[in-house]
Amino acid sequence: MPEPITDITGYMNGVGARARAASRALARAGTAAKDEALLAIAADLDANREQLIRENEKDLESGVRKGLDAALLDRLELTPGRIDGMIEGLRQIAALPDPVGGISDLKYRPSGIQVGRMRVPLGVVGIIYESRPNVTADAAALCLKSGNATVLRGGSEAFHSNQAIAAGVRRGLEQAGLPADAVQVVATTDRAAVGALITMPEFVDVIIPRGGRSLIERISNEARVPVIKHLDGICHLYIDDEADLEKALQVAFNAKTQRYGTCNTLETLLVAEDIAETVLPELGGMYREKGVELRGCETTRRLLPYAVAATDEDWDTEYLAPILSIRVVKDLDEALDHINRHSSRHTESIITENYTRARRFLREVDSSSVMVNASTRFADGFEYGLGAEIGISTDKFHARGPVGLEGLTSLKFIVLGDGHIRT
Amino acid sequence: MPEPITDITGYMNGVGARARAASRALARAGTAAKDEALLAIAADLDANREQLIRENEKDLESGVRKGLDAALLDRLELTPGRIDGMIEGLRQIAALPDPVGGISDLKYRPSGIQVGRMRVPLGVVGIIYESRPNVTADAAALCLKSGNATVLRGGSEAFHSNQAIAAGVRRGLEQAGLPADAVQVVATTDRAAVGALITMPEFVDVIIPRGGRSLIERISNEARVPVIKHLDGICHLYIDDEADLEKALQVAFNAKTQRYGTCNTLETLLVAEDIAETVLPELGGMYREKGVELRGCETTRRLLPYAVAATDEDWDTEYLAPILSIRVVKDLDEALDHINRHSSRHTESIITENYTRARRFLREVDSSSVMVNASTRFADGFEYGLGAEIGISTDKFHARGPVGLEGLTSLKFIVLGDGHIRT
Repeated sequence: MPEPITDITGYMNGVGARARAASRALARAGTAAKDEALLAIAADLDANREQLIRENEKDLESGVRKGLDAALLDRLELTPGRIDGMIEGLRQIAALPDPVGGISDLKYRPSGIQVGRMRVPLGVVGIIYESRPNVTADAAALCLKSGNATVLRGGSEAFHSNQAIAAGVRRGLEQAGLPADAVQVVATTDRAAVGALITMPEFVDVIIPRGGRSLIERISNEARVPVIKHLDGICHLYIDDEADLEKALQVAFNAKTQRYGTCNTLETLLVAEDIAETVLPELGGMYREKGVELRGCETTRRLLPYAVAATDEDWDTEYLAPILSIRVVKDLDEALDHINRHSSRHTESIITENYTRARRFLREVDSSSVMVNASTRFADGFEYGLGAEIGISTDKFHARGPVGLEGLTSLKFIVLGDGHIRT
Repeated sequence: MPEPITDITGYMNGVGARARAASRALARAGTAAKDEALLAIAADLDANREQLIRENEKDLESGVRKGLDAALLDRLELTPGRIDGMIEGLRQIAALPDPVGGISDLKYRPSGIQVGRMRVPLGVVGIIYESRPNVTADAAALCLKSGNATVLRGGSEAFHSNQAIAAGVRRGLEQAGLPADAVQVVATTDRAAVGALITMPEFVDVIIPRGGRSLIERISNEARVPVIKHLDGICHLYIDDEADLEKALQVAFNAKTQRYGTCNTLETLLVAEDIAETVLPELGGMYREKGVELRGCETTRRLLPYAVAATDEDWDTEYLAPILSIRVVKDLDEALDHINRHSSRHTESIITENYTRARRFLREVDSSSVMVNASTRFADGFEYGLGAEIGISTDKFHARGPVGLEGLTSLKFIVLGDGHIRT
């Protein structure tokens, strides 16, 4: 552990001021310099694998001493495979197109001026995350490529791992001639640092918290700067009575069982009553064989006697586990009504061959991703072609759904004239 | 005055819940219904001109009794011309294309799914404004067309005028079969209503304050929902030493003198030292003849003996008056440095024939509008072709610069598949 920092406010103000200064240089930095830095960071991490693992072991040992549970220790560990993943991620982001400076919609107006919009960085991005140290490299890379300076505040349990990664990031930035302060990892585990980071609008333009619901809610409640936040993923799939049976079975099974712990995993299945007898017994059997606990409404339980009774709470629960709630509804309207009431506005899908109902579902479901005949598991920055994602926003303001490089930028207006004046 | 409302929290919760419910219907409403409502509101206001003027007179009389100053009374007055303006504004917004439901960038991904983005309303927009009653119709119309429900809270001095306009809006909505609660004007002058409106994230998705700096700062500080805000317009024009002299004179004169009281009016003129002797004496004479007070740096005062000495405060002042501060700078870098330090990030312009400097200025100035050889007065939703504007954002998050219909919407992802599952 380094010397403890006692004046947290003073320290964080220094971090903020340096980030703001670095953000100006970074906004002007060319694509080549940013990509060079990303590749230099990747090479640095690759060359220092042993040191990364040594520092990570300090965190793991202290985690064991503190009695962290197995899941947390697993997330904390930097395995060789995870280091490969960080390095590969940096290289992938270097290969993505640079969004900054792109000009769109440049059009002549009747006055003779030409008006367009130029994509620009947001400025300084604050990232608050918990145990996974690989977030340090991933988040820094996305912010760097999008021309933003970053202040990263990782979990105290990953302190040594994060500082080791941060040192590699600094060396890579310097090698490319970019300011080392463009990426700063907060060097204190004092929780007051988080409070300072989220209340410095003069230095920080947006906060992205990555972690559990309680972390995100606390930060949203206390922040004095905009927050790109991702709360629950209570995702729904509605099997319409005009569904293709084979698609319904495949998609409903995949959406629940392909991975249990992700935010785009199906949590509530809605089935139109006219097709329930056809689809539920077979689908229920597939889930049962896979070991998924089913919690159903009354009709569901008539068709699937092994399903337990769903309570009111089930319709508002993100299980992140092999549990699925199932409700039989009258029709699309009742499905939309259920979704409007219980969805966390993350991702919903309809299985139908009916053109009008597909169009209605797309228009009327107010979620960040709305799908027809596709698994909710596709709601992901890579699957959508964003190249990478820094998070998934369940808000509507600024960014919605998976947030990639573009979500870390804004658009300014540019006007080209030839001495034009307003009359 | 109606019965005073005593339980402000309860009242505002009711307003919020009705707005949220109406927003769902409005998000689904077709273009034809929304345009029908806009035209019905226009016709209603046209048919009830006398009543509008009678209600407005109540406000004017009570304003005189309360000793409001002449400028405030002027803003408060609903003249026949201003009523024409409201009606014409409603018709223009009806004629604009509907942004809602538009799908862009629909592309196939390697997995076979088709991914695109659909434009959707934000939900419920809260507007807080001061004395001008015509904002009631303008803001309601923009929100309605963009599929958002609105809660409007006008100044207490315009209470009767706003309620009269609100009644016309309700009748127009009902006539088109849309929920009358889609536009609600708060029926109390109690300031606690503002406090409630800006702290109900469950009912309100974004707040747009329109008024003076103190109103906007107070609301930004206290809001618990995102705020689209417009602070100062301290706009700069830089005359480069490779400027075309005629363009420099025309644009610099127009930017300052075409209107003094608008946020896109020039407040600080920067002049490259190599061209100062050529351009300043003539330009200074034009300003002087027009009655503009000039406040200059030392070099400026050597060239324009009638200019008074600028103080440090001048470089950070939005005059909104026939006053201009002038500083002679060494070159583009010094101009950029001054702008970075003193601009409110609203609008800046460069006059130059030099290609490289024009490009640098566009890229390196971090303001919502950046111009080359054009008057800052063009920074306006109508001039940019947005059709209308609900305000100008000096933020970077979500909306930047003039905010039209598109700024009142968000994008959700849509995914079209054919039974696709993730593997």
